[in-house]
Amino acid sequence: MHITGSTRVFFVLGHPVAQVRAPEVFNPIFDAHGIDAALLPIQVTPAALPAFVQGSLQADNVGGLWVTIPHKAAILPLLSEVDAHGARAGAVNAVRRLADGTLAGALFDGLGFAAALDHLQVAVTGKRVLLVGTGGAGVAIAVALADRPLALLAVNDVQPARAEALVQRLATGAACPVQAQPVVDPASFDVVIHATPLGMKPDDPLPFDVARLSPGATVVDILMKPAGTPLRRACDAHGLAYHPGFEMLTQQVPAYLRYFGYGDVVDAMAGDLSQVRRNVRALA
Amino acid sequence: MHITGSTRVFFVLGHPVAQVRAPEVFNPIFDAHGIDAALLPIQVTPAALPAFVQGSLQADNVGGLWVTIPHKAAILPLLSEVDAHGARAGAVNAVRRLADGTLAGALFDGLGFAAALDHLQVAVTGKRVLLVGTGGAGVAIAVALADRPLALLAVNDVQPARAEALVQRLATGAACPVQAQPVVDPASFDVVIHATPLGMKPDDPLPFDVARLSPGATVVDILMKPAGTPLRRACDAHGLAYHPGFEMLTQQVPAYLRYFGYGDVVDAMAGDLSQVRRNVRALA
Repeated sequence: MHITGSTRVFFVLGHPVAQVRAPEVFNPIFDAHGIDAALLPIQVTPAALPAFVQGSLQADNVGGLWVTIPHKAAILPLLSEVDAHGARAGAVNAVRRLADGTLAGALFDGLGFAAALDHLQVAVTGKRVLLVGTGGAGVAIAVALADRPLALLAVNDVQPARAEALVQRLATGAACPVQAQPVVDPASFDVVIHATPLGMKPDDPLPFDVARLSPGATVVDILMKPAGTPLRRACDAHGLAYHPGFEMLTQQVPAYLRYFGYGDVVDAMAGDLSQVRRNVRALA
Repeated sequence: MHITGSTRVFFVLGHPVAQVRAPEVFNPIFDAHGIDAALLPIQVTPAALPAFVQGSLQADNVGGLWVTIPHKAAILPLLSEVDAHGARAGAVNAVRRLADGTLAGALFDGLGFAAALDHLQVAVTGKRVLLVGTGGAGVAIAVALADRPLALLAVNDVQPARAEALVQRLATGAACPVQAQPVVDPASFDVVIHATPLGMKPDDPLPFDVARLSPGATVVDILMKPAGTPLRRACDAHGLAYHPGFEMLTQQVPAYLRYFGYGDVVDAMAGDLSQVRRNVRALA
């Protein structure tokens, strides 16, 4: 990529940030579509977050922010507007400046996950869905799935109070029944979504007992381990459909591009995310 | 260049900033020397400068700032330390964070100009030198030349009060006599330095009467017009030595690199700036 004095600048904010792949996902897209823009990593502490956000977005050619751990919830008090998913989840992963100079945020994690289900042809309408893990990603996924007419959205967390809190958060406005599952049990669910960190380390225990899954159930993971996880291997051993997290990330790309004014690039892709998908997998 | 989550980030601050060439000068150097760093343009208004500077330099991986017009003097109140040239000129073009989190600044314009004279073998020791133009660049050049044992440093400006103010600024600590020249006259000088904007536009008048220069005099310009300026053509017509501003910019590169911790790159260059020089000329 060629950076000049006229390059538009975006930042992805995290702490740490070295592991973040967004620059390697989006800069090649800018490049391929002739967009003079660059996405740069910014490692900023929670204490310094307000000063960085408020200072950097005063620059004319800073187009917006990607926001990742641990800032997705902490950035909310700096925003004058939040989209429906972000407000419901209490977190955003994109921030842009409005015409009046104040800041707006949006959350694309859940939207990306739901779009991934569609791409993977994992039906959820009228289905019983279990979400295991209600950290940031889990909450975002629950918020997006609660927009859909599931038969049931059950949510589980090793800390049952967190699952209960999520159910309360979704109590009004959900398009489906939502309930907490105090002790994890994937039996009787059509789709089981894994949104805990278990599997990041090779000797992690399984997040739930795969042997109890229905034979036709599908497991959708948010983890992206090219070599696979214990959960993937257990699903394979039981002949269960399993999908890793690559698609969730891939499907967020159009949302980010549109949010930052590059809808024409999304239109030019004409629904073909195959290049983005290959890149996301190669980076994992 | 390849930007990842571990890339170190630098900004060049200006308003406007689209014309700034520093990203195209420094990013290829980072690239060629395997440095995971990127220099990005930031267009920031004077009103937003303090918030941007203080906010952006709280990020762990923001290594420092290049500073250009109109911020070189305005940034001084934000700094806890300024190098000798910067303090004397009342302006800096580089800012970095100190270990205690406060900010330090330095001015390399004059240093680059003085190094360019050496590279071009334009002797000034014991010589009579006239500086025409005491804007930001002119002041920086005067501050650096006043460190050297010239026979005389005369300074002229179309606003005589500005030249007088510069003489006052250099009144103590100069290594040579410094005096103001109220009406520009290049006669009797060995070296005449042109530091006004005249020549940026093709129909600009000459900044001084070239016919009055001594036959052996040398004219050194800060302008970099590949097609040449009226001043260059007048010098050519009178058989006078003339040097454009490319070298001043080229010679600042090692100072910036050392200031931001890349002294090893300067050492690896072993004094050979030919690649940088070609790039600076190609970008002009």
